[in-house]
Amino acid sequence: MLIQLKKVTIVAESLLKEGILEILKAQGSTGYTITACEGEGSKGIHASDFEGRNIQIDTIVSSEVGQLVLTAVSERYMKNYALIAYMNDVEVVREDKFK
Amino acid sequence: MLIQLKKVTIVAESLLKEGILEILKAQGSTGYTITACEGEGSKGIHASDFEGRNIQIDTIVSSEVGQLVLTAVSERYMKNYALIAYMNDVEVVREDKFK
Amino acid sequence: MLIQLKKVTIVAESLLKEGILEILKAQGSTGYTITACEGEGSKGIHASDFEGRNIQIDTIVSSEVGQLVLTAVSERYMKNYALIAYMNDVEVVREDKFK
Repeated sequence: MLIQLKKVTIVAESLLKEGILEILKAQGSTGYTITACEGEGSKGIHASDFEGRNIQIDTIVSSEVGQLVLTAVSERYMKNYALIAYMNDVEVVREDKFK
Repeated sequence: MLIQLKKVTIVAESLLKEGILEILKAQGSTGYTITACEGEGSKGIHASDFEGRNIQIDTIVSSEVGQLVLTAVSERYMKNYALIAYMNDVEVVREDKFK
Repeated sequence: MLIQLKKVTIVAESLLKEGILEILKAQGSTGYTITACEGEGSKGIHASDFEGRNIQIDTIVSSEVGQLVLTAVSERYMKNYALIAYMNDVEVVREDKFK
Protein backbone atom coordinates (compact mmCIF):
# COMPACT_ATOMS: atom_id res chain seq x y z
CA MET A 1 0.00 0.00 0.00
CA LEU A 2 2.92 2.34 0.69
CA ILE A 3 5.48 3.58 -1.80
CA GLN A 4 8.81 5.21 -1.08
CA LEU A 5 8.92 8.81 -2.31
CA LYS A 6 10.50 12.11 -1.31
CA LYS A 7 8.96 15.11 0.38
CA VAL A 8 10.61 18.26 -0.91
CA THR A 9 10.32 21.30 1.38
CA ILE A 10 11.16 24.87 0.40
CA VAL A 11 10.99 27.73 2.91
CA ALA A 12 11.16 31.17 1.31
CA GLU A 13 9.82 34.68 1.28
CA SER A 14 6.19 34.66 0.22
CA LEU A 15 6.89 36.82 -2.84
CA LEU A 16 8.63 33.80 -4.40
CA LYS A 17 5.46 31.68 -4.25
CA GLU A 18 4.40 31.85 -7.88
CA GLY A 19 7.93 31.35 -9.20
CA ILE A 20 8.51 28.29 -7.03
CA LEU A 21 5.15 26.78 -8.00
CA GLU A 22 6.05 27.28 -11.67
CA ILE A 23 9.25 25.32 -11.11
CA LEU A 24 7.38 22.54 -9.32
CA LYS A 25 4.96 22.16 -12.20
CA ALA A 26 7.69 22.37 -14.85
CA GLN A 27 9.71 19.62 -13.12
CA GLY A 28 6.80 17.21 -12.78
CA SER A 29 5.23 17.80 -9.38
CA THR A 30 1.44 17.38 -9.45
CA GLY A 31 0.47 18.77 -6.07
CA TYR A 32 1.72 20.88 -3.21
CA THR A 33 0.88 22.24 0.23
CA ILE A 34 1.63 25.78 1.40
CA THR A 35 1.91 26.73 5.06
CA ALA A 36 2.49 30.24 6.41
CA CYS A 37 5.47 30.54 8.73
CA GLU A 38 8.04 32.96 10.00
CA GLY A 39 11.74 32.48 10.35
CA GLU A 40 15.19 33.78 10.81
CA GLY A 41 18.17 32.73 8.75
CA SER A 42 21.87 32.82 9.25
CA LYS A 43 21.98 36.51 8.42
CA GLY A 44 19.88 37.29 11.47
CA ILE A 45 17.25 39.11 9.45
CA HIS A 46 13.60 38.29 9.98
CA ALA A 47 12.12 38.06 6.52
CA SER A 48 8.87 39.07 8.14
CA ASP A 49 10.39 42.45 8.91
CA PHE A 50 10.57 43.54 5.33
CA GLU A 51 8.70 41.22 2.99
CA GLY A 52 5.72 39.81 4.78
CA ARG A 53 5.54 36.30 6.11
CA ASN A 54 7.45 33.35 4.80
CA ILE A 55 5.92 30.31 3.24
CA GLN A 56 6.76 26.64 3.41
CA ILE A 57 5.96 24.72 0.25
CA ASP A 58 5.89 20.92 0.43
CA THR A 59 5.50 18.53 -2.47
CA ILE A 60 5.62 14.75 -2.64
CA VAL A 61 7.58 13.53 -5.64
CA SER A 62 9.91 10.83 -6.91
CA SER A 63 13.56 11.08 -5.92
CA GLU A 64 14.41 12.11 -9.48
CA VAL A 65 11.86 14.93 -9.56
CA GLY A 66 12.98 15.99 -6.09
CA GLN A 67 16.54 16.44 -7.31
CA LEU A 68 15.32 18.44 -10.30
CA VAL A 69 13.13 20.70 -8.17
CA LEU A 70 15.88 21.38 -5.63
CA THR A 71 18.39 22.15 -8.35
CA ALA A 72 16.06 24.46 -10.27
CA VAL A 73 14.87 26.36 -7.18
CA SER A 74 18.42 26.78 -5.89
CA GLU A 75 19.84 27.94 -9.21
CA ARG A 76 17.08 30.47 -9.65
CA TYR A 77 16.83 31.93 -6.14
CA MET A 78 19.60 30.98 -3.77
CA LYS A 79 22.06 33.61 -4.87
CA ASN A 80 19.72 36.51 -4.11
CA TYR A 81 17.19 35.28 -1.59
CA ALA A 82 17.15 33.66 1.82
CA LEU A 83 15.81 30.21 1.05
CA ILE A 84 16.04 26.76 2.60
CA ALA A 85 15.45 23.69 0.46
CA TYR A 86 15.65 20.05 1.40
CA MET A 87 14.02 16.67 0.96
CA ASN A 88 13.46 13.54 3.02
CA ASP A 89 12.16 10.02 2.59
CA VAL A 90 8.46 9.40 3.05
CA GLU A 91 6.28 6.30 2.75
CA VAL A 92 3.17 7.40 0.92
CA VAL A 93 -0.25 5.79 0.53
CA ARG A 94 -0.88 4.94 -3.11
CA GLU A 95 -3.99 6.81 -4.09
CA ASP A 96 -4.76 4.56 -7.04
CA LYS A 97 -5.37 1.65 -4.68
CA PHE A 98 -8.42 3.44 -3.33
CA LYS A 99 -9.94 4.96 -6.47
CA MET B 1 17.26 9.26 25.09
CA LEU B 2 15.85 8.97 21.57
CA ILE B 3 13.52 6.30 20.27
CA GLN B 4 12.74 5.48 16.66
CA LEU B 5 9.10 6.16 15.81
CA LYS B 6 7.04 7.31 12.82
CA LYS B 7 5.50 10.67 12.12
CA VAL B 8 2.25 10.18 10.23
CA THR B 9 1.07 13.20 8.22
CA ILE B 10 -2.38 13.60 6.68
CA VAL B 11 -3.28 16.62 4.53
CA ALA B 12 -7.01 16.94 3.87
CA GLU B 13 -9.96 19.28 3.64
CA SER B 14 -10.71 20.77 7.04
CA LEU B 15 -14.18 19.26 7.13
CA LEU B 16 -12.54 15.84 7.63
CA LYS B 17 -10.84 16.93 10.85
CA GLU B 18 -13.12 15.23 13.38
CA GLY B 19 -13.32 12.01 11.40
CA ILE B 20 -9.56 11.76 11.05
CA LEU B 21 -9.01 12.49 14.75
CA GLU B 22 -11.50 9.73 15.60
CA ILE B 23 -9.44 7.31 13.53
CA LEU B 24 -6.21 8.42 15.21
CA LYS B 25 -7.65 7.80 18.64
CA ALA B 26 -9.23 4.49 17.66
CA GLN B 27 -5.93 3.21 16.28
CA GLY B 28 -3.88 4.14 19.33
CA SER B 29 -2.48 7.62 18.73
CA THR B 30 -2.33 9.67 21.92
CA GLY B 31 -1.56 13.12 20.54
CA TYR B 32 -1.58 15.19 17.40
CA THR B 33 -0.76 18.58 15.92
CA ILE B 34 -2.94 20.44 13.42
CA THR B 35 -1.61 23.13 11.09
CA ALA B 36 -3.68 25.20 8.68
CA CYS B 37 -2.46 25.07 5.09
CA GLU B 38 -3.61 25.40 1.52
CA GLY B 39 -2.87 23.18 -1.39
CA GLU B 40 -3.54 21.94 -4.85
CA GLY B 41 -3.74 18.30 -5.81
CA SER B 42 -3.36 16.40 -9.00
CA LYS B 43 -6.86 17.38 -10.10
CA GLY B 44 -5.86 21.02 -10.19
CA ILE B 45 -8.62 22.02 -7.83
CA HIS B 46 -7.82 24.26 -4.90
CA ALA B 47 -9.62 22.74 -1.94
CA SER B 48 -9.63 26.25 -0.54
CA ASP B 49 -11.93 27.30 -3.37
CA PHE B 50 -14.87 25.30 -2.14
CA GLU B 51 -14.37 23.95 1.35
CA GLY B 52 -12.28 26.36 3.35
CA ARG B 53 -8.66 25.81 4.12
CA ASN B 54 -6.93 22.49 4.33
CA ILE B 55 -5.42 21.04 7.45
CA GLN B 56 -2.29 19.05 8.06
CA ILE B 57 -2.55 16.60 10.93
CA ASP B 58 0.66 15.10 12.34
CA THR B 59 0.92 12.36 14.93
CA ILE B 60 3.92 10.52 16.34
CA VAL B 61 3.27 6.81 16.68
CA SER B 62 4.85 3.37 16.45
CA SER B 63 5.38 1.92 12.99
CA GLU B 64 2.51 -0.50 13.62
CA VAL B 65 0.06 2.22 14.62
CA GLY B 66 1.24 4.30 11.68
CA GLN B 67 0.31 1.54 9.27
CA LEU B 68 -3.11 1.16 10.91
CA VAL B 69 -3.81 4.90 10.77
CA LEU B 70 -2.79 5.21 7.12
CA THR B 71 -4.88 2.21 6.15
CA ALA B 72 -7.98 3.36 8.03
CA VAL B 73 -7.79 6.96 6.79
CA SER B 74 -7.26 5.84 3.21
CA GLU B 75 -10.04 3.29 3.22
CA ARG B 76 -12.49 5.78 4.66
CA TYR B 77 -11.66 8.90 2.65
CA MET B 78 -9.42 8.39 -0.33
CA LYS B 79 -12.11 7.31 -2.75
CA ASN B 80 -14.14 10.49 -2.34
CA TYR B 81 -11.78 13.17 -1.07
CA ALA B 82 -8.50 14.75 -2.06
CA LEU B 83 -6.17 13.54 0.66
CA ILE B 84 -2.46 12.93 1.04
CA ALA B 85 -1.21 10.53 3.69
CA TYR B 86 2.33 9.44 4.46
CA MET B 87 4.76 8.66 7.23
CA ASN B 88 8.48 9.01 7.86
CA ASP B 89 11.07 7.97 10.43
CA VAL B 90 11.68 10.27 13.38
CA GLU B 91 13.95 10.03 16.42
CA VAL B 92 11.85 11.18 19.34
CA VAL B 93 12.80 12.30 22.86
CA ARG B 94 11.37 9.88 25.41
CA GLU B 95 9.13 11.95 27.63
CA ASP B 96 9.24 9.46 30.50
CA LYS B 97 12.95 10.12 30.93
CA PHE B 98 12.13 13.65 32.04
CA LYS B 99 9.04 13.16 34.17
CA MET C 1 24.81 19.49 -4.11
CA LEU C 2 22.97 17.88 -1.18
CA ILE C 3 24.30 17.25 2.30
CA GLN C 4 22.86 14.99 4.96
CA LEU C 5 21.67 16.94 8.00
CA LYS C 6 18.94 16.69 10.63
CA LYS C 7 15.72 18.62 10.92
CA VAL C 8 14.90 19.14 14.59
CA THR C 9 11.22 19.84 15.35
CA ILE C 10 9.88 21.08 18.66
CA VAL C 11 6.13 21.52 19.27
CA ALA C 12 5.32 23.48 22.42
CA GLU C 13 3.15 26.12 23.99
CA SER C 14 3.85 29.48 22.40
CA LEU C 15 5.00 30.99 25.68
CA LEU C 16 8.14 28.86 25.43
CA LYS C 17 9.18 30.45 22.14
CA GLU C 18 11.93 32.76 23.38
CA GLY C 19 13.41 30.17 25.69
CA ILE C 20 13.57 27.54 22.96
CA LEU C 21 15.12 29.99 20.49
CA GLU C 22 17.77 30.86 23.10
CA ILE C 23 18.64 27.18 23.37
CA LEU C 24 18.83 26.82 19.60
CA LYS C 25 21.25 29.72 19.32
CA ALA C 26 23.32 28.57 22.29
CA GLN C 27 23.72 25.08 20.82
CA GLY C 28 24.78 26.26 17.39
CA SER C 29 21.66 26.53 15.25
CA THR C 30 21.82 29.46 12.82
CA GLY C 31 18.25 29.60 11.57
CA TYR C 32 14.75 28.41 12.31
CA THR C 33 11.17 28.40 11.09
CA ILE C 34 8.13 28.89 13.31
CA THR C 35 4.65 27.69 12.37
CA ALA C 36 1.48 28.24 14.39
CA CYS C 37 -0.43 25.07 15.17
CA GLU C 38 -2.78 23.54 17.66
CA GLY C 39 -2.62 20.16 19.29
CA GLU C 40 -3.63 17.75 21.93
CA GLY C 41 -1.24 15.62 23.91
CA SER C 42 -1.57 12.46 25.87
CA LYS C 43 -3.13 14.32 28.77
CA GLY C 44 -6.10 15.24 26.62
CA ILE C 45 -5.70 18.94 27.30
CA HIS C 46 -5.73 21.39 24.43
CA ALA C 47 -2.89 23.80 25.10
CA SER C 48 -4.92 26.29 23.10
CA ASP C 49 -7.56 26.21 25.82
CA PHE C 50 -5.40 27.91 28.38
CA GLU C 51 -2.20 29.27 26.91
CA GLY C 52 -2.85 30.44 23.38
CA ARG C 53 -1.83 28.53 20.33
CA ASN C 54 1.07 26.16 20.07
CA ILE C 55 4.10 26.67 17.90
CA GLN C 56 6.20 24.31 15.88
CA ILE C 57 9.85 25.31 15.65
CA ASP C 58 12.02 23.66 12.99
CA THR C 59 15.75 24.03 12.58
CA ILE C 60 18.19 22.34 10.21
CA VAL C 61 21.41 21.33 11.97
CA SER C 62 24.15 18.72 12.12
CA SER C 63 23.36 15.47 13.89
CA GLU C 64 25.58 16.57 16.78
CA VAL C 65 23.83 19.92 17.22
CA GLY C 66 20.49 18.15 16.90
CA GLN C 67 21.33 15.90 19.84
CA LEU C 68 22.44 18.91 21.91
CA VAL C 69 19.27 20.88 21.12
CA LEU C 70 16.97 17.96 21.94
CA THR C 71 18.77 17.27 25.20
CA ALA C 72 18.78 20.92 26.30
CA VAL C 73 15.13 21.53 25.41
CA SER C 74 13.99 18.34 27.11
CA GLU C 75 15.98 18.92 30.28
CA ARG C 76 14.68 22.46 30.59
CA TYR C 77 11.01 21.97 29.74
CA MET C 78 9.82 18.40 29.57
CA LYS C 79 9.20 17.95 33.27
CA ASN C 80 6.74 20.84 33.49
CA TYR C 81 5.37 21.43 29.99
CA ALA C 82 3.65 19.48 27.26
CA LEU C 83 6.31 19.35 24.57
CA ILE C 84 7.17 17.08 21.67
CA ALA C 85 10.71 17.04 20.33
CA TYR C 86 12.20 14.92 17.56
CA MET C 87 14.52 14.95 14.59
CA ASN C 88 14.76 13.27 11.22
CA ASP C 89 17.18 12.96 8.33
CA VAL C 90 17.03 15.54 5.57
CA GLU C 91 19.07 16.08 2.40
CA VAL C 92 19.72 19.80 2.22
CA VAL C 93 20.86 22.04 -0.63
CA ARG C 94 24.25 23.55 0.19
CA GLU C 95 23.73 27.29 0.10
CA ASP C 96 27.43 28.03 -0.42
CA LYS C 97 27.29 26.37 -3.83
CA PHE C 98 25.01 29.14 -5.05
CA LYS C 99 26.52 32.23 -3.43
